[in-house]
Amino acid sequence: MKELQRFVRESLLKAGVTPLHAEKVADVFERATLRGVGHHDIYDLPGRLQNLTSKRINPKPHIQQLSKFEAIESYDGDNGLGEIGSSFITDRAMNLASQYGIGFCTIRHSNHFLAASPYVERAAEAGFLGLIFTRTRPAMNVPGINSNVIGNNPMGFAAVTGKEFPLMLDIAMAYTSNGKLNQMIQDEQPIPIFWGKDAQGNPTEDPVAVKNGGSINPIAEHKGFGLSLLVEMLTGLLSGGEVIDEEHPERGGVGVHSQAALIIKIEGFMDAELFRKRSSEMIDRLAANHREIRIPGQRSHKNKLQIEREGIELSPVLVRELDRWAEQLQISPLER
Amino acid sequence: MKELQRFVRESLLKAGVTPLHAEKVADVFERATLRGVGHHDIYDLPGRLQNLTSKRINPKPHIQQLSKFEAIESYDGDNGLGEIGSSFITDRAMNLASQYGIGFCTIRHSNHFLAASPYVERAAEAGFLGLIFTRTRPAMNVPGINSNVIGNNPMGFAAVTGKEFPLMLDIAMAYTSNGKLNQMIQDEQPIPIFWGKDAQGNPTEDPVAVKNGGSINPIAEHKGFGLSLLVEMLTGLLSGGEVIDEEHPERGGVGVHSQAALIIKIEGFMDAELFRKRSSEMIDRLAANHREIRIPGQRSHKNKLQIEREGIELSPVLVRELDRWAEQLQISPLER
Repeated sequence: MKELQRFVRESLLKAGVTPLHAEKVADVFERATLRGVGHHDIYDLPGRLQNLTSKRINPKPHIQQLSKFEAIESYDGDNGLGEIGSSFITDRAMNLASQYGIGFCTIRHSNHFLAASPYVERAAEAGFLGLIFTRTRPAMNVPGINSNVIGNNPMGFAAVTGKEFPLMLDIAMAYTSNGKLNQMIQDEQPIPIFWGKDAQGNPTEDPVAVKNGGSINPIAEHKGFGLSLLVEMLTGLLSGGEVIDEEHPERGGVGVHSQAALIIKIEGFMDAELFRKRSSEMIDRLAANHREIRIPGQRSHKNKLQIEREGIELSPVLVRELDRWAEQLQISPLER
Repeated sequence: MKELQRFVRESLLKAGVTPLHAEKVADVFERATLRGVGHHDIYDLPGRLQNLTSKRINPKPHIQQLSKFEAIESYDGDNGLGEIGSSFITDRAMNLASQYGIGFCTIRHSNHFLAASPYVERAAEAGFLGLIFTRTRPAMNVPGINSNVIGNNPMGFAAVTGKEFPLMLDIAMAYTSNGKLNQMIQDEQPIPIFWGKDAQGNPTEDPVAVKNGGSINPIAEHKGFGLSLLVEMLTGLLSGGEVIDEEHPERGGVGVHSQAALIIKIEGFMDAELFRKRSSEMIDRLAANHREIRIPGQRSHKNKLQIEREGIELSPVLVRELDRWAEQLQISPLER
């Protein structure tokens, strides 16, 4: 993973990102890749490099404060990488939580933040209960409407436990993603009937029908719609950014992501040791007589240990892409 | 509704609740009943009176502070009504948000809070973005386990808009409730195949099979499980209260609810007028060309207007119960 991190850092530097920011982004990519899920991780690096070198995304964003009132702050991300903006507000919210017990920061004119877990995992390691939210462009339908009306607006949280793994969740408010649909199409697998609708608005088990003019459903109908609207408010509205299908006056659909970080100082409530003990007892009660249970955060921790031990297998397509970028940016290719 | 509020207030007073608390609880019952959903509202009053007069729930709780660190506080609810504890922490969190921009308060040893919307609606009316969370006793399964493992842990949020209604959501993390299952059984209707499992752990469309040894599913499998775990942490863990299936050493399953209120000062981010404008624009974009869309908070506002105009029809069963309580507590019966 050190070599992977080296590659991310050096390629970003060559693409114009500052050393401090490249360090932050490389940390996000490393954490995301260690989850071992095979998407929203190192596989997204070529896309980021493409956007940076084409100046679609600003390699050297100047993040500016828009508002501050004690424990809440908002920022403008200057169309920088989402990983930069989200790392920034997570750090700020941790600082505020240290001072006030809780901190809440928003950032507008950011971009895709890769995944939720890298930010909240870092907050958990620092002893906080961390939450992060991001709005996206419209990506799912809502009850009664058969088109992409609102983003799938992911969120994540994490907190330490007395176990070897933190409690951690990283989810979007839709039943599935385009990536997962493509996978199901490739594997010629049907999808659960409640995941999406076809072009006529009828429920379908055919992933192709969802892709071709259909749309993905929010989780549990009005519940997923409502939760995505909450995320939209916490991010787009409270950052003063774009909402729903709004475009940026000059950049169109680029830089219209907004994120929000909410950090709680656990030690403002109780001793850190007690929290670890109680959260472990919570897990033990969940797992009592239920060996099949999968506690949120458990699997990605297991994957992390395995990748750290055995390394990670990258697809030949990705390796070729990374080699091409190494040549273009004149850095050492990824050693394997 | 004035008469209904009078009845709630007077019956609570006779059941031993203090005037200040009775006022708070009556407000919660009024707001919940005005939603017009026909459950978790005035229909729960007889149960509350039963618990108060039998001293299962403490009519005169002494709420005590357990911890404070700037904008975060935790309390013990002294086995009082959930409506008292949740009103209390909502008020406290609003005070903290006024001072710090955000406030977060938890309370343990509380009871069922009736519904989420009354608290967050009040916060929204005061200009805040309000969220509230409650843990419950185990009420749904989790992926891989066919029994009630964790609470359905409801949450709600609300914020003002420039429209006549606030954005508002009040949901549990399960696909359905026991009340809804009973309704489906009564109406001889099948349930969607993904709502629950039978006693053998197989998906079923038969609500009777779910009730008889089966269990209700969390929304979107691991997503609903993860979200309920988040609520469990924010409430049970951070309040120092019970978690999962823990019982109180003396009271058993009574008073093991915990709640958490999270309040954000919108004006810490932007002018209230601008927020109203932007939230209305958000709704307009959602509703553009989509007349069928139902914005969260819109229907309960419509119901509220109708009930205020035309009054509310109560079931003969409820009316008989309330008459019985009027006689027992020696107050004037509900005038209709």
